[in-house]
Amino acid sequence: MITDAIRMTIPDRGGGRVAMVMETIRQRVAGRALTAGARLPSIRQMARTAGVSPSTVVEAYERLVAEGLIGARPGSGFYVAAQAAPLELARVGPLRDRAIDPLWVSRQSLEAGATALKPGCGWLPPSWLPQEAVRRALRGLARADEAVLADYATPLGLAPLRQLIARRLADKGVEAAPERIVLTESGTQAIDLICRLVLEPGDTVVVDDPCYFNFQALLRAHRVTVVGVAHTPSGPDIAAFAAALAAHRPKLYITNAAIHNPTGATLSAATAHRVLKLAEDFSVTVVEDDIFADFEHRPAPRLAAFDGLERVIQIGSFSKTLSASARCGFIAARGDWVERLVDLKIATTFGGGRLDAALVLRVLTDSVYRKHCETLRTRLARARAEAGTRLKRIGLKPWLEPQAGMFLWCALPQGVDAADVARRALEHEVVLAPGNVFSVSQSATGFLRFNVAQCPEPVFAALDRALREARG
Amino acid sequence: MITDAIRMTIPDRGGGRVAMVMETIRQRVAGRALTAGARLPSIRQMARTAGVSPSTVVEAYERLVAEGLIGARPGSGFYVAAQAAPLELARVGPLRDRAIDPLWVSRQSLEAGATALKPGCGWLPPSWLPQEAVRRALRGLARADEAVLADYATPLGLAPLRQLIARRLADKGVEAAPERIVLTESGTQAIDLICRLVLEPGDTVVVDDPCYFNFQALLRAHRVTVVGVAHTPSGPDIAAFAAALAAHRPKLYITNAAIHNPTGATLSAATAHRVLKLAEDFSVTVVEDDIFADFEHRPAPRLAAFDGLERVIQIGSFSKTLSASARCGFIAARGDWVERLVDLKIATTFGGGRLDAALVLRVLTDSVYRKHCETLRTRLARARAEAGTRLKRIGLKPWLEPQAGMFLWCALPQGVDAADVARRALEHEVVLAPGNVFSVSQSATGFLRFNVAQCPEPVFAALDRALREARG
Repeated sequence: MITDAIRMTIPDRGGGRVAMVMETIRQRVAGRALTAGARLPSIRQMARTAGVSPSTVVEAYERLVAEGLIGARPGSGFYVAAQAAPLELARVGPLRDRAIDPLWVSRQSLEAGATALKPGCGWLPPSWLPQEAVRRALRGLARADEAVLADYATPLGLAPLRQLIARRLADKGVEAAPERIVLTESGTQAIDLICRLVLEPGDTVVVDDPCYFNFQALLRAHRVTVVGVAHTPSGPDIAAFAAALAAHRPKLYITNAAIHNPTGATLSAATAHRVLKLAEDFSVTVVEDDIFADFEHRPAPRLAAFDGLERVIQIGSFSKTLSASARCGFIAARGDWVERLVDLKIATTFGGGRLDAALVLRVLTDSVYRKHCETLRTRLARARAEAGTRLKRIGLKPWLEPQAGMFLWCALPQGVDAADVARRALEHEVVLAPGNVFSVSQSATGFLRFNVAQCPEPVFAALDRALREARG
Repeated sequence: MITDAIRMTIPDRGGGRVAMVMETIRQRVAGRALTAGARLPSIRQMARTAGVSPSTVVEAYERLVAEGLIGARPGSGFYVAAQAAPLELARVGPLRDRAIDPLWVSRQSLEAGATALKPGCGWLPPSWLPQEAVRRALRGLARADEAVLADYATPLGLAPLRQLIARRLADKGVEAAPERIVLTESGTQAIDLICRLVLEPGDTVVVDDPCYFNFQALLRAHRVTVVGVAHTPSGPDIAAFAAALAAHRPKLYITNAAIHNPTGATLSAATAHRVLKLAEDFSVTVVEDDIFADFEHRPAPRLAAFDGLERVIQIGSFSKTLSASARCGFIAARGDWVERLVDLKIATTFGGGRLDAALVLRVLTDSVYRKHCETLRTRLARARAEAGTRLKRIGLKPWLEPQAGMFLWCALPQGVDAADVARRALEHEVVLAPGNVFSVSQSATGFLRFNVAQCPEPVFAALDRALREARG
């Protein structure tokens, strides 16, 4: 075993490879694929599986010993520590040195200074959001009824907002009465509540590979095993999806509606139909995350629309097109789930965002909101085209041309490691989103996700430099 | 086994007793005291323990069979169903008929119509809150910087608010640098995050008996076993607390700071010292919920102050004295916990309430807030005295005269069941808080909690009538 003091002096010779092996073990422990007392793969075996040298595995294991996650028994290998440490989602340390895990992009983006560039982040700049309408809504709220300003929300949440959400869902073919809609404090909280209701530790959940990194971070908090299914331009790879359902018997499949994060892929009707058929065959509940709804030019197929909200639960929020500062999301689900979700919501957050819901309602019903969304879609289409051109010029290749949204999922030149590029860019205050934070299988080392709304001119120069440095 | 159709026709002959037995079993299953496949107590044994007739137990068990929670094996008794149903915190059904469980008061209070009276609820009427300051804050926010209106919060949350909270904590003797304070979306969410970090299913948590009912609802969501320790006017009964720690080896003890909910008891310095000593001896982490801080005339001892935030985590919010519509709470904890709490917060809710935090900061720094709190304390003292007099007149006896706060914990006349009174009062649109929703041991059937700020004249007449009906 090596001490903390010694550990500090070990240079990261293996670069991202040591971190990758550590991350693999951490994930298996977090997902309970390796439980307390379980023996780790041998050095030789792990080296083969991960495609790294045995000395890289030795270093990774020794660091995990120093962290207390595993222990070594002389002559018989490494074991998961008997006394599991409290739930830890990621390696904790100074942010700069933090391992690139599913929380890396969130933390770097949320903590970036005012001068930092954030092409890796997942939201629009404030100037792209309907600020005048938000200011108008705040002035209106200042004159609102006293209960709006002081009281808890009702358990389901503000009725007129739920009615409006029901109408918006109907526009996408999803039939949900307002009584089947539960307001939450965010889209993330909506998924969290569903996980709390459906999952038990040790269960398995299927996600897309790549998928929104926070699905992975959230699922780790639920101590479940996460299985990825390769994504195609029209949705999950159906053969892989079927195989994963048969092999792992997951309880949940979590995916994006319409515009996939990070790839920008759009679900086709044929794939939607097959996904639902398989979900039914294997009794899987599907969570469809529709937070990018207002980015779409024309609505793509919704799983929830095909299914009639029987097996599919839809969630959404207004963070991407209205404001991320006001917190408001929702769940649309089968009637018999609603009561239980409400109980869970009260137990874990009590009331829930009456003021923010009132603000969102005011902005959504402000006459400028529809116009704002139209302008936004056009602006994003232009930004996608421009960023695509600029990125190609410096050697990056978009995986596809998305029909809508803010993301471009780009392949790096052969042999360049995205985590390496991201670390170098961070030195110059540019937060990138390296592919593996999205990938359960850690198979996206050659990709970066770009937010085209966060790509001003200097991003490309900084990126070009980081790329050239990474190529050595 | 009885079918659903038959179940519908069974009259609730046992009244609350059948529900109580069902609830006992549900709690044991939820808390994992009874796990899948485990045999239930025999009919005879359960009847003895619960002090009910065997036929009441039979009916309760049969209903649980119909719900799918347990199964019957002819000749060998009842067993917890192998395939555990999804997490359910409470019996779901039409609210009026809902079993009186830890969520009963929350749901009834939050769903009560505008004309309902809510002496059982846990918050002040809007007119008792600083509305003009809230309106002023909203007008100010309408002119705020664009990032305040549009962007996510930083991971720890608004720095000036954390600085202000650090100063407020220092006033109560709790030393916490702003970097050790994490903003959350509510006090409830603050406790939930701590539970997520510290607890695993099957762990044990100690609470006061009686305690705030939502502690129990929240802990059920974490699938842990809850153990209650009798409360005294100066804090937990130390002998019982020591015995519980020795017998159950809990991970956490969750309690109120200063003003205890529901009893209004105040922690004494001597008890605080003993609690901390025992917590240290048994390696128990303590969560001190300080949401009533601004109700106090002079600060009572804080566990966090004695302990220096080593073993104690303090949480708070502004729902009780500022607004429950804007959601903002906080955690003050040891430095090495903060990073992990932030990761969990991002994973489960992503950003978190920037706009609401900005609003709270504006109100707290508004010159009228201090004056508002002073007025509020005087008004509450007067209301406590008045409500106490009125309650005594109709036969209720306050357990003690609290030094501060909005609650009176009152004993009913001998032989009157609080749940029965609460159900009768609900018929007349009066939401009461019956004692057993606060009691892990279900030993508070003879108590009601009153919120003196929600006791206008008609409450007493309605209560008097319900009491007389309950006495037959």
